[in-house]
Amino acid sequence: MEIKKEHYFLQTDLAGMEQRFRTHLINSIGGFKSLALIGSIDKAGQSNLAVFNSIVHLGAHPPLIGCIVRPDSVERHTLSNILEAGYYTINHVNEAIYKQAHQTSARYPKTQSEFEAVGLHEEYKNDFAAPFVKESSIQLGVMFKEKLDIVLNGTTLLVGEIVCIYYPEHCLLQDGHMDLEAAGSITCSGLDTYYGVKRLSRLSYAKPDTLPREVD
Amino acid sequence: MEIKKEHYFLQTDLAGMEQRFRTHLINSIGGFKSLALIGSIDKAGQSNLAVFNSIVHLGAHPPLIGCIVRPDSVERHTLSNILEAGYYTINHVNEAIYKQAHQTSARYPKTQSEFEAVGLHEEYKNDFAAPFVKESSIQLGVMFKEKLDIVLNGTTLLVGEIVCIYYPEHCLLQDGHMDLEAAGSITCSGLDTYYGVKRLSRLSYAKPDTLPREVD
Repeated sequence: MEIKKEHYFLQTDLAGMEQRFRTHLINSIGGFKSLALIGSIDKAGQSNLAVFNSIVHLGAHPPLIGCIVRPDSVERHTLSNILEAGYYTINHVNEAIYKQAHQTSARYPKTQSEFEAVGLHEEYKNDFAAPFVKESSIQLGVMFKEKLDIVLNGTTLLVGEIVCIYYPEHCLLQDGHMDLEAAGSITCSGLDTYYGVKRLSRLSYAKPDTLPREVD
Repeated sequence: MEIKKEHYFLQTDLAGMEQRFRTHLINSIGGFKSLALIGSIDKAGQSNLAVFNSIVHLGAHPPLIGCIVRPDSVERHTLSNILEAGYYTINHVNEAIYKQAHQTSARYPKTQSEFEAVGLHEEYKNDFAAPFVKESSIQLGVMFKEKLDIVLNGTTLLVGEIVCIYYPEHCLLQDGHMDLEAAGSITCSGLDTYYGVKRLSRLSYAKPDTLPREVD
C-alpha cells in the first residue's frame, strides 16, 4: 500500500494556526484514546462526573493508572474532589451512554451533580468512598497516589492505584486480559468523535527470531 | 441496558494475583489505547523503532504530546536516543503494518535497527533529525522538552512538542480535526490485541442547557 502524504504542517504553520483549528488538530493527531467517566465526591457529599480521554497505563506492579487534568477546565472539580477525598472511580464508556458522557463536559456549576444532569446513576458498593457509574460495564476504584505538574502548560498528571475492578464475567480471558470489545467499551479521537471497535487479532509475545502469530 | 457485573477483584485479590495475570489485566483494564511507532536515532547514526501504546495528549497551545517509557524494557533504547538527539518521530500504525509494529517489541540488540529487522522503512525529510516510518499514514516530528519521573514505579513521562505533521490530504477536516479512521489508524488494548474502528458519531460542543447533537 503506497500512502500519499503530500500535505504537511511545519513548525511555523503550527505556530501561526488559528487557535480553534489547532485545538482540533492537536487533540486528534495523537491517535485513538481511552474514554472513561471519572466519578468523585467532595466531603459535603456533592458528587461529580467528568469525561476523560487521557487515561494512561503506568504499570501493573503495583497497578498504577494515570490521567491528565487541565486545571482551567471543568476537570478542576474532579481534581479538587480527588485531592480532598483521596479516592475516585474510572468507568468505561459504552455505546449506550457516550452521549451522556460527552454531555458531562458542559460547564455545570459545582453545586450540580453531572450524574443527575446527564441522566446517569451513582452506584456505591463495598464501602468504596467514591461513586461508580451504574451504566458502565467496567468500573475501577482508584486511590490517589501522587500528582506531577507539567510546568510547560499547567496540566497535571494524576497518578492513582487501582484498588478494585468490577467487570462482566464473560469478558475476562483465562490469562487475565480483559476483552473490552465484549464489554462494549468504545474509543474516541479529538474532542468529540466516538468510535466502536472490531478486533483484528491478538498476537503472540514478540521474540527476535520468530514472527508474531495470531493467538486465541 | 442492564449490565450484570457479578464479578470483581478487590485490593487483596489484586495484591495476591499471579504476576503475569495481573500484567495482562492491568494493561487491558484502562481502555483502548493510542498505537504508534516511535522512531529515533543516536549520534552514531544507529536508528531505532519501538511500538508505544501510551501516547497521551497534553495540550494544544503549545502542541505538547506525552508518552510513558519503562526504562527497564526495550523502550530504553528509544529513551536514550531521544535524550541524546533531542528529536523523535511518532508514526501511526495501520492495518497493513501492525504485525511489524508488534514485532518491534522483541528484544533486538541495540546494534540492530528494528526498521530493518521487522521490514519497515526509514524516511528522512525536510531536515528533520529523526527517521519517520515510510509506511505510516500520519507522521509527527517531535522535539524533546522535558521528562518527569514517576518515582512510584520507575517510569518516565516523556514530554515533547509537535513540530511537524505529515498527513494524507483527504483526512483533514475543515475545522482542523484529523479523521483517523480515514487515515487507517488502528487502536489496541492490553499488550497484544489490535482493533480497527468504526465511527459512531461526532458530537457538538457540550453546553449545560442543550443536549449534544450529531455533527458532520
